[in-house]
Amino acid sequence: MDFFFAPRGVAVIGATPNPLKGGNAILKNLLSGYRGEVYPVNPRYRQIEGLPCYPSISAVPDPLDLAIIFIPAPLVPASVEECAARGVAGVMIESSGFAETGADGFQYQSELRKMAAGKRIRIWGPNGMGLVDVKHDRIFSFMDPRARQREWIPGDVSLVVQSGLLSATFLFDIMSHGLMGVSKVCSVGNKVDVNECDLLEYFIGDPDTRVIGFYLESFADGRRFLEIRRRCAKPIVVLKGGRTRKGAEAALSHTASLAGNHRIIAGALAQSAIIEVRDFRQMTDVCRTLAMMPPPDAPGNRVAVLTFSGGAGIVSADFIEENGLRLADLSEETRTALRGLYPAWMPVAHPIDLWPALESHIGQNVNIFGLALEAVLADPGVDAVFLHAFTGNAHIRIDPTDLVRPVRESGKPAVVWQTGRREESFSFQQQALRCGIPVFTEIGRAVECLAAVLRGRYRPETIPALGIPVGPL
Amino acid sequence: MDFFFAPRGVAVIGATPNPLKGGNAILKNLLSGYRGEVYPVNPRYRQIEGLPCYPSISAVPDPLDLAIIFIPAPLVPASVEECAARGVAGVMIESSGFAETGADGFQYQSELRKMAAGKRIRIWGPNGMGLVDVKHDRIFSFMDPRARQREWIPGDVSLVVQSGLLSATFLFDIMSHGLMGVSKVCSVGNKVDVNECDLLEYFIGDPDTRVIGFYLESFADGRRFLEIRRRCAKPIVVLKGGRTRKGAEAALSHTASLAGNHRIIAGALAQSAIIEVRDFRQMTDVCRTLAMMPPPDAPGNRVAVLTFSGGAGIVSADFIEENGLRLADLSEETRTALRGLYPAWMPVAHPIDLWPALESHIGQNVNIFGLALEAVLADPGVDAVFLHAFTGNAHIRIDPTDLVRPVRESGKPAVVWQTGRREESFSFQQQALRCGIPVFTEIGRAVECLAAVLRGRYRPETIPALGIPVGPL
Repeated sequence: MDFFFAPRGVAVIGATPNPLKGGNAILKNLLSGYRGEVYPVNPRYRQIEGLPCYPSISAVPDPLDLAIIFIPAPLVPASVEECAARGVAGVMIESSGFAETGADGFQYQSELRKMAAGKRIRIWGPNGMGLVDVKHDRIFSFMDPRARQREWIPGDVSLVVQSGLLSATFLFDIMSHGLMGVSKVCSVGNKVDVNECDLLEYFIGDPDTRVIGFYLESFADGRRFLEIRRRCAKPIVVLKGGRTRKGAEAALSHTASLAGNHRIIAGALAQSAIIEVRDFRQMTDVCRTLAMMPPPDAPGNRVAVLTFSGGAGIVSADFIEENGLRLADLSEETRTALRGLYPAWMPVAHPIDLWPALESHIGQNVNIFGLALEAVLADPGVDAVFLHAFTGNAHIRIDPTDLVRPVRESGKPAVVWQTGRREESFSFQQQALRCGIPVFTEIGRAVECLAAVLRGRYRPETIPALGIPVGPL
Repeated sequence: MDFFFAPRGVAVIGATPNPLKGGNAILKNLLSGYRGEVYPVNPRYRQIEGLPCYPSISAVPDPLDLAIIFIPAPLVPASVEECAARGVAGVMIESSGFAETGADGFQYQSELRKMAAGKRIRIWGPNGMGLVDVKHDRIFSFMDPRARQREWIPGDVSLVVQSGLLSATFLFDIMSHGLMGVSKVCSVGNKVDVNECDLLEYFIGDPDTRVIGFYLESFADGRRFLEIRRRCAKPIVVLKGGRTRKGAEAALSHTASLAGNHRIIAGALAQSAIIEVRDFRQMTDVCRTLAMMPPPDAPGNRVAVLTFSGGAGIVSADFIEENGLRLADLSEETRTALRGLYPAWMPVAHPIDLWPALESHIGQNVNIFGLALEAVLADPGVDAVFLHAFTGNAHIRIDPTDLVRPVRESGKPAVVWQTGRREESFSFQQQALRCGIPVFTEIGRAVECLAAVLRGRYRPETIPALGIPVGPL
C-alpha cells in the first residue's frame, strides 16, 4: 500500500486550470506539500499550474506510482484500464456518480470491481475524497486548497472514513479548535477495492499511527476486519453510520452501502475490544484521548476527582459510576495530605473539592492543585485522575505544563474538564495538547474517554482464536 | 421575592477593602451595575470603596431591602437576627461552613432554619453564590469582579443552581463562547429557606424568563415543586446531581443534600413534562434551544435534514430515530423542487445531501441552501428542519441572517449543526445567536435539543390534577 501513502510520482487525470474545479484543487494540493513528481493529465492543455500537462497517462514519464482520477464517472473505467496498462500501481478515484446514483453508475462500479479483482492495479474509491497525510503534508484530495492553514496539527490519530466530511470540513474544525492532532485521513468512498481491512492492516505497521478511528457505512468483510484486529495492538474506535432503519436507507444512497444488522455489529465490535461511538466529535474525542494517554498494561477503574466545584464533583461521581468506573477510596496518607491544605472546618471528602483550600490560601502562592495532584497520584488505590480546571481566575489557575511531569512519572492517566472564558480556554487547550493532556468541555465526555483508556491495553497475544462464528456484518 | 431580585438598597455585612476577600468582591460587583443604594457594614472601617461604612446593620439608613452576608459561619445567626430586627426583608448568606461541614455548622444552619420559620425574614443560602441578573446588570455575589466582561449576553434562560459553578465560572464560559444568553442565575446553596419551589413560582411571572433550568442536589419539597410546575407554562429543565450512590454521598458533603431515589425522581419529572438532563453543558444547550425556539402548540416529530455531507446525514438519521423523531416523508412538490437543483445523475433522497447541487452550481451564485430550505419549510409533512452548515467554504456558506425570515414565517423550529474553522465558527455562532437560531457542534446534541422543542408546548390547563401520590423526592 505504500504506493498510495508515499508514491514516487503522482498523475492527476482530469487536471484543469479552472480554479472552481476539483481537478485544479487536487493539483494545487499536491503542489503545496507533496515532494515527488506531479503530472497533470488532460489532452486539452499543454501546461497547468506551471507544469507540463500530458495528453494521456501513457505519455507520463517515470517515476509514477499513483494516479488520482477526477473525471466524469462514465469515463473512469477506461481510464483505470489505461493506468493498469501503463503499470501504475494504484489509482485513487475521487469522482462520484457510481453505485450511489443508480443503474448506470452501478455498471461503472462493476467494471472497476472486475479490474481490481484482476489484481493488476489497486483501486481506492470511487466517490471518496482520497488521502490527507498531515504529518508528511501530502494532500491527495480535491478539498478546498485554501483550507490548509497554520492550524494544521500533526498527531497520532489516523482515520478511515466513508464520508468526505471527516477528511475535509470536520478535519479543519477539530484541528483549528486546538484539541487534536491528526496523522492520516483516508476517505475511501464506495470501497470497490481498497477498504477498511486493507487500511487497518497497513496501520498496524505505520509508525505514525497510534490509534485508528473508522467512520463506516458498511463492513466490506467483517470477519477479515475482526481477524486483522486480533493482530493489531493499537486501539480501534468505530462509528458505524446506519444503526437504525432510516440511517441504513440513507447509507444505501450515500455510498451504496448495505449497513447490516446493528445488533450483530455492536456485539462483534464489543467482543473484539473495539470501541463503538455514535457521533463524529465523540469519535475524535475518544481517539485523541487514546493517542495522548495510551491505555495502561492492566485495566483499572479507581478514579480520583480533583475539582474546584462541589457540583461538578457530584456530576463527575455520577458519570464515573455510570461508566463502570468508581471513585477511588483515598488512603490515609492522601487524606492527611489533603487535610493539610484545607481550612479547619472542612472535612476531607471525595470528590476532592479544592475550593475551600484555594480560597483559604489566596495570595499565599501555594500550588494547591499541584500538591493535591501529587497526593492522589502517589496513592496506590488510585488508577487515574480526573482534574477540573477553570481558566478564568488567577487563584485557581492550573498550568498544563505543571501537570506533565507528575502525570508521566506516575504512569497514571489523567484527563481534564475545562471551563473558562473563550480565549483563555483556547490557549489552555492548545498548551494541554502540546503537553499530551486531553481536555474536555463536557464532564460526561471526559469520563467516557477516561473509561476507554482505563479498559487497559489490548494484547493480541493473550486473546484466544475467534471461537464463535461471525457472519457477515 | 422582589426584595431579592430588585431591592431598594443593599447592605453588605462583611464588607472589606481587602481585594482578595469575597466581602470586597461583593461590594465591587454591586457598584459595577446595581443602581440602588449600597451600604458596606463592618465595625472596623469608616469607609470602603468610597462609600461610608456602617458599624452594624441597625445603623444603616433606608431604603434597605436586602443584606448580603459574608462573615464566618459562627457569626451568621446573630447577624441574621439583627437584620430581622432592623426590618430587612431578606438576607442572602454567601458564607460557607454550615451543614455541609459537620456538627457545628449543622447547629448554625438549624438556627437559621428556625428564624426563617418565624417568617420575619426570608433567607437565601447559606453556602451559595447569590444572584446574577444579566439583563439588569445586578450581581449580588462574591464572584471575581474582573470576570464580568463585554461577552455578557442578556437572554431568556434563568437558572437555579445548587452550585457556585453555574453562577460563576461556567456562566462566563457559556456566554463568552457566544452560544447563549442568560437572564438570572440563582445560586441557592444549602436552601435553608428560599428554595427551587419559591424560585420556580417567581419565574412563572417573570417577564425576563422564558425557560428555567435547575441544577439541584436535592428537592426541598418535591410535591410542591410538581404542583407549581403544573401552573407554569414555561419549559423546565432539570439536572439532578447525585443520581448514583457515590454521587449522592458527594451531594451530602457539598450542600448537605439528601439526594433521594433517582428512579422515583426521574419518573416524577417525566410525568410532569420536565426535561431531565445529565450534564451542565447539556442543560444549557437544551435551555437555550427552548428559549430561542419556543415549542409549537402541538407536538410533531417529522424532521427534514439538509446537509452537505452524506455521512453527517446518515448519522443524523440515526439520532433522529433514536430520539423518537422521524425523517419526514417529503412531498412530491418538495422532491420536484429539489430535483431542479440537482445534477441529472443525482436521485432525490432524504436526508437531503446538497453537496452535488452545490458543486454543480459553483460560481453561479445560486442560493442552493436557501431554495432547499424554502421547499422543505413549505412541505406540510415537515414539522422541523435540521440544517448542517460548514463555515469554511464560500460555495457552501450559509448566512444565519438568511434563515431568520423563512424559519419565522413557517413557524417551524430549525436547528443547525455547524462545523468549520475556529474563527469562522465563532462568528457564525454569534450571528446565529442574534438571529435566534440554535447552533450545535455535535449532531447528537442538536437532535436531542430539537426533540425537546418538538414535544410541543406544555399547557397546564389541559393537565388533570395530580392523580397519584408523590412521596418526598
